Amino acid sequence: MKKQLLAFALMLTAVSAYSQKPSKKNYQYINPIIGTQRMGHTFPGATVPFGSVQLSPETDTIAYELNKKYNGEVYKYCAGYQYDDKTIVGFSHTHFSGTGHSDLGDFLIMPTTGALQLNPGTAANPQSGYRSAYSHANEVAQANYYKVKLDESNITAELTTSQRVGFHQYTFPKTTDAHIILDLMSGIYNHKEKNVYTFIRIENDTLVTGYMQTQGWARTRTVYFAMAFSKPIKEYGVKKYDEGNIYNGFWRKFDQTKNFPEAAGRNLRMYFNFDTEQNEKIKIKFALSPVSTAGALVNMKIEIPHWDFEKAKADGQQLWENELNKVKVETLTESDKVNFYTALYHAFINPTVYMDADGSYKGLDQNLHKVDGFTNYTTFSLWDTYRALHPLFNIVQPKRNRDMVQSMLAHYSQSVHKALPVWSNSANENWCMIGYHSVSVIADAVIKDNADFDTKLALEACINSSNLRYYDGIDSYLKYGYVPEDKNGSSVSKTLEYAYDDWCIAQMAKKLGRDDVYAEYTKRAQNYKNVFDASVGFMRPKLSDGTFKKEFDALDTHGQGFIEGNAWNYSLYVPQDPEALIALNGGKEKFATHLDSLFTMTLPDKYFEQTEDITRDGIIGNYVHGNEPSHHVAYLYNWTGQPYKTQQRVRMIIDAMYKPTPDGLGGNDDTGQMSAWYIFTALGFYPVAPGSDHYALGSPKVKEATLSLENGKTFTITAKNQSAKNVYVAKAELNGKVLDRLYLTHDEIMKGGTLLFYMSSKPAK
Amino acid sequence: MKKQLLAFALMLTAVSAYSQKPSKKNYQYINPIIGTQRMGHTFPGATVPFGSVQLSPETDTIAYELNKKYNGEVYKYCAGYQYDDKTIVGFSHTHFSGTGHSDLGDFLIMPTTGALQLNPGTAANPQSGYRSAYSHANEVAQANYYKVKLDESNITAELTTSQRVGFHQYTFPKTTDAHIILDLMSGIYNHKEKNVYTFIRIENDTLVTGYMQTQGWARTRTVYFAMAFSKPIKEYGVKKYDEGNIYNGFWRKFDQTKNFPEAAGRNLRMYFNFDTEQNEKIKIKFALSPVSTAGALVNMKIEIPHWDFEKAKADGQQLWENELNKVKVETLTESDKVNFYTALYHAFINPTVYMDADGSYKGLDQNLHKVDGFTNYTTFSLWDTYRALHPLFNIVQPKRNRDMVQSMLAHYSQSVHKALPVWSNSANENWCMIGYHSVSVIADAVIKDNADFDTKLALEACINSSNLRYYDGIDSYLKYGYVPEDKNGSSVSKTLEYAYDDWCIAQMAKKLGRDDVYAEYTKRAQNYKNVFDASVGFMRPKLSDGTFKKEFDALDTHGQGFIEGNAWNYSLYVPQDPEALIALNGGKEKFATHLDSLFTMTLPDKYFEQTEDITRDGIIGNYVHGNEPSHHVAYLYNWTGQPYKTQQRVRMIIDAMYKPTPDGLGGNDDTGQMSAWYIFTALGFYPVAPGSDHYALGSPKVKEATLSLENGKTFTITAKNQSAKNVYVAKAELNGKVLDRLYLTHDEIMKGGTLLFYMSSKPAK
Repeated sequence: MKKQLLAFALMLTAVSAYSQKPSKKNYQYINPIIGTQRMGHTFPGATVPFGSVQLSPETDTIAYELNKKYNGEVYKYCAGYQYDDKTIVGFSHTHFSGTGHSDLGDFLIMPTTGALQLNPGTAANPQSGYRSAYSHANEVAQANYYKVKLDESNITAELTTSQRVGFHQYTFPKTTDAHIILDLMSGIYNHKEKNVYTFIRIENDTLVTGYMQTQGWARTRTVYFAMAFSKPIKEYGVKKYDEGNIYNGFWRKFDQTKNFPEAAGRNLRMYFNFDTEQNEKIKIKFALSPVSTAGALVNMKIEIPHWDFEKAKADGQQLWENELNKVKVETLTESDKVNFYTALYHAFINPTVYMDADGSYKGLDQNLHKVDGFTNYTTFSLWDTYRALHPLFNIVQPKRNRDMVQSMLAHYSQSVHKALPVWSNSANENWCMIGYHSVSVIADAVIKDNADFDTKLALEACINSSNLRYYDGIDSYLKYGYVPEDKNGSSVSKTLEYAYDDWCIAQMAKKLGRDDVYAEYTKRAQNYKNVFDASVGFMRPKLSDGTFKKEFDALDTHGQGFIEGNAWNYSLYVPQDPEALIALNGGKEKFATHLDSLFTMTLPDKYFEQTEDITRDGIIGNYVHGNEPSHHVAYLYNWTGQPYKTQQRVRMIIDAMYKPTPDGLGGNDDTGQMSAWYIFTALGFYPVAPGSDHYALGSPKVKEATLSLENGKTFTITAKNQSAKNVYVAKAELNGKVLDRLYLTHDEIMKGGTLLFYMSSKPAK
Repeated sequence: MKKQLLAFALMLTAVSAYSQKPSKKNYQYINPIIGTQRMGHTFPGATVPFGSVQLSPETDTIAYELNKKYNGEVYKYCAGYQYDDKTIVGFSHTHFSGTGHSDLGDFLIMPTTGALQLNPGTAANPQSGYRSAYSHANEVAQANYYKVKLDESNITAELTTSQRVGFHQYTFPKTTDAHIILDLMSGIYNHKEKNVYTFIRIENDTLVTGYMQTQGWARTRTVYFAMAFSKPIKEYGVKKYDEGNIYNGFWRKFDQTKNFPEAAGRNLRMYFNFDTEQNEKIKIKFALSPVSTAGALVNMKIEIPHWDFEKAKADGQQLWENELNKVKVETLTESDKVNFYTALYHAFINPTVYMDADGSYKGLDQNLHKVDGFTNYTTFSLWDTYRALHPLFNIVQPKRNRDMVQSMLAHYSQSVHKALPVWSNSANENWCMIGYHSVSVIADAVIKDNADFDTKLALEACINSSNLRYYDGIDSYLKYGYVPEDKNGSSVSKTLEYAYDDWCIAQMAKKLGRDDVYAEYTKRAQNYKNVFDASVGFMRPKLSDGTFKKEFDALDTHGQGFIEGNAWNYSLYVPQDPEALIALNGGKEKFATHLDSLFTMTLPDKYFEQTEDITRDGIIGNYVHGNEPSHHVAYLYNWTGQPYKTQQRVRMIIDAMYKPTPDGLGGNDDTGQMSAWYIFTALGFYPVAPGSDHYALGSPKVKEATLSLENGKTFTITAKNQSAKNVYVAKAELNGKVLDRLYLTHDEIMKGGTLLFYMSSKPAK
């Protein structure tokens, strides 16, 4: 353990030694290792902002069957890499960042030397297969760059990317037995039915094309590729692990396993052999396409027409620098800056671009589509990201956020349900988690005047999505005004979130002049009240007969009508109307005390064991930051007359939950939502209710931040007297005038200006 | 058995009562039932000429696993239907005609009433599932029309088609329990790995779209569909038979089995429920596409924009009439006319059109392509069809044959092997059987001046295909001048066929002015001599050390260096140079006696049991007509000075092997090759060596035939004194001049004119 920490420290020093010199680029503060240990589920490999390729090492790819338990070992490998592991299996091209279930891990490549081994081998005995031991001392992880020495073969592996191309550079020893393994059976969250079909062509001695089709979290997903080698293949072959096809005989009538230029089936592993000189570099450009191998080839030719690895790396790092420069910060410490820019990095990975260079993509109907004036995105983890990530985009990535909404509307138009995405990836809806939170993202964009899309279609899409009767209890929600627990599980969470979403639709309708819709949805938005049990002071599962379910444990997470949160946390989920929530809870003071209890109580171990996706560090008292439903909670003190508690709590949370270490994230990063919370909170404000143009003021963590907005304006945040102890805001000034309220409006930011916080060690009671 | 024959006779009477009245259309002589019993492997259902849809009943779809043996029960169901069966499982949309292995059987539909049953049930107990008993007395099979009463449900099923659309019409009794089953697990030559993926969307209450992907004989094949109902669906559902997918939980979080508009997985069955009045018709239009569901929908809208079943049926029958009118015949008997037009029908089913109405299709590289000035075809059973089917097309379907060559060249251009098709279907090469006989088809077109395609590319494609070193013994064929049996099985068949193919390339090269290629391939064409063993008078397997393999049984088909033929039959396979073959065999007289022995000897049962694909009726002596390698053999007498024996033998074969009965074909029709042999022979000539412009004269079976050629010319064949006994040609006249030779040239036919045979009961020795 100590050895690892030392290696990590060395790496930190090498990569991002703190310096205020202007010559140091912001992207150099990014540390992709953060979150790779335990529950962060981030990946350490290379990617560009919102890149279609995430080229990263896998330290294990465990088949589900070997785990039996759903939350068993396989869960650790949502992003393919676990910092504590001692071996690397190989490098694959697609990874989610921070998700709570997983998929992807396409096209695992591993360079080896010596006797050819096509099986990955075991972590305990890497020599038994193609995997290799490695050490963090020999590992470098930067924005768009990953490097590691493979101990088994003494090969140095380097990875970088462009939008759709993974660029590998392997430095070999001298050998006549150099191999590149292409394992087409490997994949994240693998199980015996996941691999559906694989098709490969060796087009010539430096080019391979093909595709792989899986049924995983994305119900059906085909990724096409073109793989170019910098050096001609000496010989190659394939091993097919399929059984039971009566036509195999035909395919075996002459040798199709060696130097035969095509292969297909469900389970294949390929190898490519080379002779190498000492320190000879073999490079691979591996382009992806959601459409065709022809598309992948074009993507490669457009994006990386050369073989200059250093140029590709620098080009991608410059893309990061451009994105990061939208929020220039000065911080108290190096760690803060690493945390900030790594959070911004994690916030700018998902959603990912999902189309060929020419704008072609596969739609939800599995037909071919071409974008009409927007960039198509995928990977919408909306239950997470509607809260802070998309609101963050409305400030610092407004163009991309509009394109994301366009992508969601394309999804809607292609959906046989006529529904907006719930959790969508690669032209698939996986229905993961709850709610119809696309409406929050769209409403937030409309309310914030970032709505250069078809708002009429958008409102129609929101209305239809909220009335999809067969979806997850909507039918009874419409009938009863709440989801009855006897009709549909997690009923309280659903009721609360539907009510919030309905409020979003109302806000949007009002702005678009649809008073009828506003009236209807304003009424629906009150539904949260239907599950509040005043007798216990909590939201509580109600049955279809109108009575509350008898058994009730406000600390328990499972089977109590909630999901990823217990009654304590979820009962605070009325972001659209904190004042009404406080009234329900007996007024400001009682409510503030209730919040205090949340943060200070001790959650017995038996309850912690039931919480999902988070480490013990992800909890403060009974406040669960590692899951999302409470992300707005610390800001609720603003409505109780005790804003200083918001200030103190958010500074406590930001310090406790975000560290510049491999285990620095207290829970899954959830495709950037956890990071977006950090960014907002570090800047001093937070969107408690997306769909409103208000941001609740908190306590900034930065010393200074400059937002360079796409409209050309600049918004500057300065924290005077900022220090670790000065967590309280004595006074705030907007454009030189004292701000006598606890919120900022979106318009105030977008017009440009200055926000000045006067920090203090004493609460301004 | 008697009952069945009676039913069949009744049907014949009803469908095609013989009449010379001009009001009777030629298509009415087509009897699709011919060949559906035993080994013909034809299907009785509806299709248009070269149609992409073959909508036909399945009497069983047996999973391979239930058979264990490769040539077990599953083999009977190559076309889905066996005349002796008592039950119908349902109606599926794609069928090969007459193949010796199989695939397809896509999208099986069955109408039922009463309690919903999603399993097919067993033939012994049809009530145990959705299948139904039926009787041939209630069955009508015509060109582009099939009708049957389903005894179980009392539903009358009617089927017709357009190019890409299957049109179903089901007449129901009055019930509130009417079901349409869509079985997406059913398929021909099914096995547990065949179904790869299925994707379904219920777009609205009268439209379903989706696709099904299989790995069968076509290694990967996806068929897209759009299915329209004439009446709104009352309710619907799906049952998924998959196991082992860890994401199933997500999909079950709310009910996705009933009235949920999408479904996907490997193994699905769907049902659609309706209320019906007495005799109410529910119609279904089921459009296919090789490209997309969007393409299928367009195909439907273009081809059958209405719901008039009778019109669709009549339109398709008119297409058949148009094609059949290219060869108008007068025959001695009704049976002959049924045989002739059914043979022409079977000859005009394959290859099939493989592209959307807009010319889009999936290529061999699995990328999307669009035709450039031609119609794209698939289903090339070339080992069979190069012999007579494509030569027939060069006379009566020259435009289509050019397009077929264009399709083969597109295949070549998309092939990673840079090779022409061997046995290709649905953008796949299955490498079935031997040879590179595409070159014969192309050379035949070039020699016959039907070559409005890129002949330079074509010659390149032929040369490359003949030098594909890793393909089936080519490497050693090039090295040794023959395929050594110790290097590669079926070595003699391969050597002989490669030598013929090489001769084709030589002829083509000569015509195209490539004397270098002509010289090289003329030399290669002599390679057949390398496997002739003069000491035994047979072609015989040779080893790589230059000696003949010791063990040798000239009657045995298996393991003797041959495939689908024994040494007796295959030793006659030098179609490119019968004179040289005769010289090898000791001269004309000795050779004629040898041929006599072939036709008159008795093949012991133990040898017959080894022959593939044919019934005992498919053999005359040791002459095997049910397989293809001997199809030219009866014509070889022309080179021995005893042409009357050709005349007698071909009339004997045509009568013995082709009957207007369900078991009327002596072997697999092989996508029309057996039928093309019939057409040529019935017209009085045969292409012994495609790639030559000569046709060997035989003995016509027709009384008169008029070929209406695409160039506007007419070629008439008349057999004076034609009768069952007058099988000998006393004299032949071309355009009024005595023909003092035993062949006709292609040019003589295409210029138009008259060929007059004077028939006689006595041989003209």
